[in-house]
Amino acid sequence: MLVSALLTSVGINSGLCVLFFTLYSILRKQPSNYEVYVPRLVAEGKSKGKSYFNLERLIPSPGWLKNAWKLSEEELLSSSGLDAVVFMRVITFSLKVFLFAGVIGIFVILPVNCSGDQLDNLDLTNLSNNSLDVFTISNVNNGSKNLWIHFSAIYAVTIFVCYLLYHEYKYISSKRLAYFYSSKPQPHQFTILVRSVPVSSGSSVSECVDGFFKEYYPSTYLSNMVVHRSNKLRNLIHDAKKLYRRLIYLRSDPTQRKYQRNCCFGLCGRKVDLVDHYGKQLEDLEENLRLEQSGVSYAGQEVQAAFVSFKSRYGAAAAFHMRQSINPTHWVTEEAPEPRDVYWAFFSASFMRRWISKLVVVVACILLTVLFLIPVVVVQGLTNLSQLEIWLPFLKSLLTISIVSQVITGYLPNLILLLFLKTVPPIMEFLSSLQGYISHSEIEKSACNKVLWFTIWNIFFASVFSGSALSQINIFLEPKNIPSKLAVAVPAQASFFIAYVVTSGWTSASSELFRVIPLFCSLIKRPFTESNDDELEVPSISYHKDIPRILFFGLLGITYFFLAPLILPFLLVYFCLGYIIFRNQLINVYAPRYETAGKFWPIVHNSMIFSLVLMHAIAVGIFTLKKLPKASTFVFPLPILTLLFNEYCRKRFLPIFVAYSAESLIKRDRQDEGDPAMAKFFQELVTAYQDPALMPIRYSPDTDTDSLHRPLLNSAPV
Amino acid sequence: MLVSALLTSVGINSGLCVLFFTLYSILRKQPSNYEVYVPRLVAEGKSKGKSYFNLERLIPSPGWLKNAWKLSEEELLSSSGLDAVVFMRVITFSLKVFLFAGVIGIFVILPVNCSGDQLDNLDLTNLSNNSLDVFTISNVNNGSKNLWIHFSAIYAVTIFVCYLLYHEYKYISSKRLAYFYSSKPQPHQFTILVRSVPVSSGSSVSECVDGFFKEYYPSTYLSNMVVHRSNKLRNLIHDAKKLYRRLIYLRSDPTQRKYQRNCCFGLCGRKVDLVDHYGKQLEDLEENLRLEQSGVSYAGQEVQAAFVSFKSRYGAAAAFHMRQSINPTHWVTEEAPEPRDVYWAFFSASFMRRWISKLVVVVACILLTVLFLIPVVVVQGLTNLSQLEIWLPFLKSLLTISIVSQVITGYLPNLILLLFLKTVPPIMEFLSSLQGYISHSEIEKSACNKVLWFTIWNIFFASVFSGSALSQINIFLEPKNIPSKLAVAVPAQASFFIAYVVTSGWTSASSELFRVIPLFCSLIKRPFTESNDDELEVPSISYHKDIPRILFFGLLGITYFFLAPLILPFLLVYFCLGYIIFRNQLINVYAPRYETAGKFWPIVHNSMIFSLVLMHAIAVGIFTLKKLPKASTFVFPLPILTLLFNEYCRKRFLPIFVAYSAESLIKRDRQDEGDPAMAKFFQELVTAYQDPALMPIRYSPDTDTDSLHRPLLNSAPV
Repeated sequence: MLVSALLTSVGINSGLCVLFFTLYSILRKQPSNYEVYVPRLVAEGKSKGKSYFNLERLIPSPGWLKNAWKLSEEELLSSSGLDAVVFMRVITFSLKVFLFAGVIGIFVILPVNCSGDQLDNLDLTNLSNNSLDVFTISNVNNGSKNLWIHFSAIYAVTIFVCYLLYHEYKYISSKRLAYFYSSKPQPHQFTILVRSVPVSSGSSVSECVDGFFKEYYPSTYLSNMVVHRSNKLRNLIHDAKKLYRRLIYLRSDPTQRKYQRNCCFGLCGRKVDLVDHYGKQLEDLEENLRLEQSGVSYAGQEVQAAFVSFKSRYGAAAAFHMRQSINPTHWVTEEAPEPRDVYWAFFSASFMRRWISKLVVVVACILLTVLFLIPVVVVQGLTNLSQLEIWLPFLKSLLTISIVSQVITGYLPNLILLLFLKTVPPIMEFLSSLQGYISHSEIEKSACNKVLWFTIWNIFFASVFSGSALSQINIFLEPKNIPSKLAVAVPAQASFFIAYVVTSGWTSASSELFRVIPLFCSLIKRPFTESNDDELEVPSISYHKDIPRILFFGLLGITYFFLAPLILPFLLVYFCLGYIIFRNQLINVYAPRYETAGKFWPIVHNSMIFSLVLMHAIAVGIFTLKKLPKASTFVFPLPILTLLFNEYCRKRFLPIFVAYSAESLIKRDRQDEGDPAMAKFFQELVTAYQDPALMPIRYSPDTDTDSLHRPLLNSAPV
Repeated sequence: MLVSALLTSVGINSGLCVLFFTLYSILRKQPSNYEVYVPRLVAEGKSKGKSYFNLERLIPSPGWLKNAWKLSEEELLSSSGLDAVVFMRVITFSLKVFLFAGVIGIFVILPVNCSGDQLDNLDLTNLSNNSLDVFTISNVNNGSKNLWIHFSAIYAVTIFVCYLLYHEYKYISSKRLAYFYSSKPQPHQFTILVRSVPVSSGSSVSECVDGFFKEYYPSTYLSNMVVHRSNKLRNLIHDAKKLYRRLIYLRSDPTQRKYQRNCCFGLCGRKVDLVDHYGKQLEDLEENLRLEQSGVSYAGQEVQAAFVSFKSRYGAAAAFHMRQSINPTHWVTEEAPEPRDVYWAFFSASFMRRWISKLVVVVACILLTVLFLIPVVVVQGLTNLSQLEIWLPFLKSLLTISIVSQVITGYLPNLILLLFLKTVPPIMEFLSSLQGYISHSEIEKSACNKVLWFTIWNIFFASVFSGSALSQINIFLEPKNIPSKLAVAVPAQASFFIAYVVTSGWTSASSELFRVIPLFCSLIKRPFTESNDDELEVPSISYHKDIPRILFFGLLGITYFFLAPLILPFLLVYFCLGYIIFRNQLINVYAPRYETAGKFWPIVHNSMIFSLVLMHAIAVGIFTLKKLPKASTFVFPLPILTLLFNEYCRKRFLPIFVAYSAESLIKRDRQDEGDPAMAKFFQELVTAYQDPALMPIRYSPDTDTDSLHRPLLNSAPV
């Protein structure tokens, strides 16, 4: 890639960013877009008033930038929870790392790279015509003493990153503990989930659970709530909700056509009052629902799993940590998620079934990750010009214009890849949900890991070793040759990844701000539905989509900082954009759907360690290739030390993210001992894990409007 | 190797076995050998009487065979504990496997192998001149349909082994639980070990531990016993013991010279009464010891570790299973070993130090395992004839005799290898003891694993890929090529391993019976010391030496059963010998030193699974090599299924071997609730984990002999 091409790309993308920012500044002030840009504020009632038109609304203003910038960590913690704080710290962490690496890279390594003459095509009179390779390590002369500067930079950055990682882990652990100490009593702290309950014939699951825990935990056991198979119910509730909304809409708007003929597509038959018709349907549905609910709760639709609540946090933790039953596959305990976080849809109870579905999902994920590019390449192949001409003959004349054909051949494959990539996070989330996790947070955490490795494999390694998936796998089956192969292939892709950061990174950040897809959905939906604030669903941030992206850019930065330091300024711009944009979105758009209290951090830590070790492997290969074997020998201890550091962190900090210690739990329990509010809390705890699908719901028109909305808010998203 | 050579080897080794058996039958009846052959019975007082000479004592009799054969599992369990039962079950398990594989191998595969003519040197007129290769799979024609018979045999044996493994795991788990339910209350069930106790300045470790557990476990905490640094004390006690023995010996034998001049090597100076002299020395030593003991107990020689006892098994288990402290590196809990099983010598307390020493030991083990053969080969190289002639010129005339030189060149390298190998189990035990384990059982378990992998690497892989260690490692760095390389190399070593089973296996079994080394030690020591039954130390079986050997023969059997089924009869003879001999030794010789209640079984299980997967890898390679790629494709699911089976067993059974469940613990606690003996037990529990080096010991002559021996028995081997 030439410097001029990069500059063009930077220009276009900077323009796009400025455009997005400006548009956002204007559009966010239009009341009709409030649901897209400030749904959280709307839901909280802070932005409800529909202001009348004035000129200010059409002038872009940077006020939101100031708000986002000023937001302190305490405010973020109180408004969006610890997970959002951790998410923002991932970005600030990356900023710190790449500021440090950037200073070294731009002011030390870049001049060294340029001063070499291994690639003798440097044209000082016209910089923009130079290949970008001039700025990479490829330009340093073989065996040059200057390579020791790269060597020192590798050590410096590794030490700096490890130092930061340690402090970040420590800080987030302390935050997690502080969060626990300051939190109010919450149902999930007192509850565990028990699966694979062995049911003796003639008794219900609830009786079995009750019997077992009353026998072995008589002093701490409080109650249990058996899980039911309620997929059918959930569908019924969904239907009822839809019907109810249509009814409300019809009633609220008297201009609407309210009659319909009841046969032959509304053409003949007698006229029916739609409001009456839907009202009747809704009543039937509700009757059906009530029957179904009573059937489910009493007649053996029980799953062999139950939420078991205890009288103290320590009691719940003791039951969770110990193996309960003589047979390790029975009475399997798990920490309970928050009630709002429970994923009710998939409750596989049997030990064997869960194990097998987990295996199947793991295999499916590996296959998807490894073989993903094959269908993509096939589809891309189908879209070459001659194919298109055959399929869509009317395009023939258009395709002869060279610019059009260039855009199509140049852009279409990328677009296809992008579209395929967009589907990955939902697919991974779906696969994780099949794996037997019981909470949305666990599912997203697992999906986050899957998407991360998917991205690293299908973008980093697939670009670097641009061969078939099988030849890629072959490289990893010969671990000895990995460094040398990486050393040849990685620097060659430097300009591709620089462009990738500019195009994919910058665009993704600004489209996050602009919320392209929700905006379009809202624009399309607006003419057909009436806005109804009560039904506004505030979105939650998709950690499994955003964290892997940030981590992947981190990986690019760490692996390329000494190969092609030119990538660093662009990365810094990306992280700055991300910093301000995500803070803004956390204030205005996203509301937390659950609170894991920082459990995403270990994923970030592992990914950083992997990036470092990958960078070391590349360095070993590069120094060998550059005929400086001594340097490659001296790099060797670095990955070992890094892995040891990681091992130490696993022992020192990871347990804090897995479970709370006896000390913390007992201290917290003692704090509550004298609290008179606890009696009420325990009363509520008994029904906290009631499946929302089993709660009575009434939409029928004979109740008043206010009481109608309550059950809607109670029922969690299914 | 020719058939005749094998027959010779079998002849020689059978002769040796018969000789050993006969000699044993005679020697075990001589009272002077009781300490060697029936130390356990002697210690239990069952074989104390020194019978007078009679002719019967010189005639070999098979009575012991009958006793060993008749021994039932219940008797073994009650006399030698569950570990001995598990050990015997390893042998019976192998017998079952190789009976099944033997029937298939000898009656199905062997004829098929012989019927091939890939190696066209079959000489039917003179079987003994044939190469053993005729009986191996190498003789089957390439692409022959007969290879499907091997294929079916592989499936049959894998399924059979997995079936047996499952049942064995299940049986031993049930035995383990039954043992727990029927066991008397034991100190280690009520105790945990706490390490890395953070000591606040100004208070002792004991106070800290007391404070912590009284605060967080007020209802179940009983007492604590802080560990002290007592290596110096142990040396003093050792000296005192030696001195005391000498004194006893001098006093008991009035014919002995009791005077000695006190200077110039006893040549000049005034005569000293030795009894008085030693008596004085002993008194001084004891005074010293008492001072030292009081110093150790009171003045800060405390290690930051303590045994913490609880009032119930469940209480101890709950404290063990939960992380105690906010900082995961403090208050690290472990299950306590039995008091007799504690390894007092190495009590490193700090988290970091233990972690680092563990890392160092792991690295040392890997280096020792991988590079072991290098010094051996060097030493073997030094012993060639010309070197020997230079070193020991007087041998020159002897070495010219061809038989002598043949024996030396043929036997010396093997002898050197054997001597080096003999040192491995103690070295591994030593390394394990540095790793921070707190009990002899943990150390032996860890050493058992280390010796097993050492043996597999240095005997199996080193023989198969007879190159340097580095070229061996290279093979494993290219995992893709492992099957094809194994397929070429493994069958080529068939005759070597058949001979290995006959020579090393049979000899090791019969020398175990004959107890060669203890016999020689006893023969040498006998003239100098007087037998003293009270001091007789009953040996314990070295699981870390014997289990790896048995498992290694199992690995040979499983990997070679379809390649060279001729190995199976010899293996069966080995296991039969082992069966009868080890039963005999468990009755007569070995007393249990600890009881892990079957914790060695998972090692056996893992080793069998590894053998199966290795066999599958070889099969994949062989079928490809033999031009039957379809078979090698169909073998492929087998290792995957085997590993899944292993994974299932890990989930289903392994937890039972790690810790007891809440259900079992609480049930067992309830059984004891009404027992009036418990009060006394708890009284004793408080001091059960007192370091024997800190207990008062008196050997001085002013006490009577009976009371002298008690402390000796109290103090565990150091």
